Amino acid sequence: MSRFWSNTVKTLQPYVPGEQPRISGLIKLNTNENPYPPSPAVHAAIAAANDAALRLYPDSQASALREGIARYYHLTPAQVFVGNGSDEVLGLAFLALLKHEAPLLFPDVSYSFYPVYCGLYGIAYRTVALTADFRIAVDDYRQPCGAIIFPNPNAPTGGLLPLAEIEDLLQAQPDVPVVIDEAYIDFGGDSAVALIDRYPNLLVVQTLSKSRSLAGLRVGLALGHPQLIEALERVKNSFNSYVLDRPAQAGALAAFEDDAYFRQCRDAVINSRERLNAGLRERGFSVLPSAANFVLVTHSQYDAVWLAAKLRERAIVVRHLAQPRIAQYLRISIGTGVECDALLQALDTILNFNGAST
Amino acid sequence: MSRFWSNTVKTLQPYVPGEQPRISGLIKLNTNENPYPPSPAVHAAIAAANDAALRLYPDSQASALREGIARYYHLTPAQVFVGNGSDEVLGLAFLALLKHEAPLLFPDVSYSFYPVYCGLYGIAYRTVALTADFRIAVDDYRQPCGAIIFPNPNAPTGGLLPLAEIEDLLQAQPDVPVVIDEAYIDFGGDSAVALIDRYPNLLVVQTLSKSRSLAGLRVGLALGHPQLIEALERVKNSFNSYVLDRPAQAGALAAFEDDAYFRQCRDAVINSRERLNAGLRERGFSVLPSAANFVLVTHSQYDAVWLAAKLRERAIVVRHLAQPRIAQYLRISIGTGVECDALLQALDTILNFNGAST
Repeated sequence: MSRFWSNTVKTLQPYVPGEQPRISGLIKLNTNENPYPPSPAVHAAIAAANDAALRLYPDSQASALREGIARYYHLTPAQVFVGNGSDEVLGLAFLALLKHEAPLLFPDVSYSFYPVYCGLYGIAYRTVALTADFRIAVDDYRQPCGAIIFPNPNAPTGGLLPLAEIEDLLQAQPDVPVVIDEAYIDFGGDSAVALIDRYPNLLVVQTLSKSRSLAGLRVGLALGHPQLIEALERVKNSFNSYVLDRPAQAGALAAFEDDAYFRQCRDAVINSRERLNAGLRERGFSVLPSAANFVLVTHSQYDAVWLAAKLRERAIVVRHLAQPRIAQYLRISIGTGVECDALLQALDTILNFNGAST
Repeated sequence: MSRFWSNTVKTLQPYVPGEQPRISGLIKLNTNENPYPPSPAVHAAIAAANDAALRLYPDSQASALREGIARYYHLTPAQVFVGNGSDEVLGLAFLALLKHEAPLLFPDVSYSFYPVYCGLYGIAYRTVALTADFRIAVDDYRQPCGAIIFPNPNAPTGGLLPLAEIEDLLQAQPDVPVVIDEAYIDFGGDSAVALIDRYPNLLVVQTLSKSRSLAGLRVGLALGHPQLIEALERVKNSFNSYVLDRPAQAGALAAFEDDAYFRQCRDAVINSRERLNAGLRERGFSVLPSAANFVLVTHSQYDAVWLAAKLRERAIVVRHLAQPRIAQYLRISIGTGVECDALLQALDTILNFNGAST
C-alpha cells in the first residue's frame, strides 16, 4: 500500500492467472492451452510480418483481420471487434456494456475474472447459483438485472447450453446486454454467432488462445450488433488505440484462413477428451460433462489438493481452484493422446489402481 | 448511441490517432515513427519466438524482458513495468496513480490522449498553460494538486526540460505522483530514470515505438519505485493478465540488447532533425526548439492546413492538430535524410521558394 495509489488500486483483488511453470518435460494441463502447435500458415504469416514495417504503427482498426473474421462467420466487419486476448475484450465489454445501475448476473461457479472486472470498474453484480449438478439453468436468469454474462461452455465446469436455451434467454431479456463468453465453444458447442442478426443485445466473445493454439499471440474477438461493437471501439480508443501488434494481426488472420488445420486439431482434442473421460471414470473419478478442452473431476476417496500435489511430483500440472463448491475438484486440460495416457498412468501409481490397464 | 451502452461510453470523446494511410511510396511524416527499421537482432528474436510455443500463454510477468530493461537502466525488475505500448501503460497509470480528489495537472498543449484518459476514468484535471514561447514552466506546477503528468520532451512541441528543473519540481511536490512521459527522451534529453532512486513519487514512462523503431510491436514501459510499479501491476492484473505476446516480449528484449544499433539510428535522426530545421528556417518557417523526432513549425505567410494539403498532393503526409494555440502549426516527423530532402524540395515548389537550394 502506498499513499500515491488511487482508491481504485487500494481495493483491488487482482485475478491470479494459472501458473506458467518453467520446467522442461512438464506435462502442462493447468491452463487449457491447446496441445497442438499453431497452423503452419500462422507461422508463415508472422514471419512475413517480421519485416522493416515493424517500425510503423499497426492498423488501429485491424481491418484485414476483422474482414477475415467477418468472412469466416458471414458477418460484416462492423459486427467484429478484436482485442489483446479475450480477457481484454471482456474487460472492455464490462466497462462499455455490463456496467449499469441494476446488477450484472453471472454464475456462482464461473470464470473467476468476472468479479475482478466488477471490482475494477465498480460494477454491481449478483451471482446465480449453478444447479446441484453444476449446470446453468437459464430460467434463473429471468430476473430483473442490468446485464448478463456467462461462458458457454461454462468454465471451469465445461457444461454446455444448447443454442435453443440461449435463444430463450435472449427472448426473455431483450432489454439488457447478454454476453456469451465462448472461449471454449469450438470444442463441441454451437456458437451463438448464429443468433447475432436477430438479437441486437447479444455479444459473443471468443479467443484464439484455445481452439486455434495461439495463447502466446494474445488475440480475442467480440461479435455482435454494430452498436455494441461501437461501444467497445469507443472504450478501446479511449484507452489504447493500437492494441494488436503487426505479428498478432497477421497470425490471427492466417489462423482463421486455415480451417482444415483448425478442424483437425479440434477433432483430436475432442477425441482425447472422450478417451480421457473414460479412463478417469474407470479410476473412480466423477467427471462433469464437458464440451470444452478441459474436464472438471473429483474423486470420492482422494483429496483434490493431495492429488494435484502427487501429480506435480510426477511433473504433471493440473489446476485446483480454491473456490466454494469445487474445492474437491481438479480442472484438467486435454493434452495430446500421449499426455492423457501419461496422466492416467501416473494416476494408476498414485491411486494404486489395479483395474483395466491403459 | 444505444440503450445497451453504459453511461461511461455515452460520454466518451475517444482519442483520434494519426492517420495510417495505405498509399505506397508515401513519405509518412505524421505519426513520429522512426524512419529506420528495427535492429536485425529484433527480427532474429521474433523469428525464434515464432515457434510451437505460441500455443502456450506468454510469461504474464514478462520476467526476461523486465530483467533486461532493469539491467539496461541499472534498476531492479521490481522497478520495471511493461505494457502493450506506452498508451496502455499511461492508461493504467492514470487509473492507478493519477486519479485523486485533487485535480491532475498537465500542460494545455500536450499529448491529446491525457484528457481522454481523464474522461474514461472520471479523473478531475486542470491544464497548465505553456509559456508564450511554448515551454513548460515547472514553477507553474507548484500548486495544490492530486498528481502531475507531462511529456519530456513535450509533445507536440518538442520542448525539453533539463533534469535539474524536473528535480526541482519533485522536491517541491513530494506528496503527489509525478509521471514523466518520456516517449521522445532518447532523441536528445536526459532521462529522469536517474532520479528514480531518490524520488518515490516519480514514474517514468517510455516506449519502444519511437527511438527503437518498434511502433508495430506495441511495447511500452514504466520505471519507478516498486510501490508505484505494484499499483500498475494490480490494475493490469484486474484487466488483462497477459498483455505482451511472445513475439513482442522477445523482440523488445532484443531491442534493448542491441545498444549500438539504437545509438546509430538515434544519431541519424538527430542529424536529420538539425539539417531539416535549418532548411525549414531558410524557407521562412519558425521552428520550435525540439529534442524529439519531430518538429512543430509554422509559417508566417502560409496557412498550416493549406500547406498540409499541398504536401499531401505530393504524397507527403504531416500532422495538423486542430487544437487551440497551435492551429497554425504543423508537426513534422523526422524522416531519413532523403525524406527530409524530399520534403524541402516539395516546399520549394509549394512556396515558390527561390532562396538557397538544398
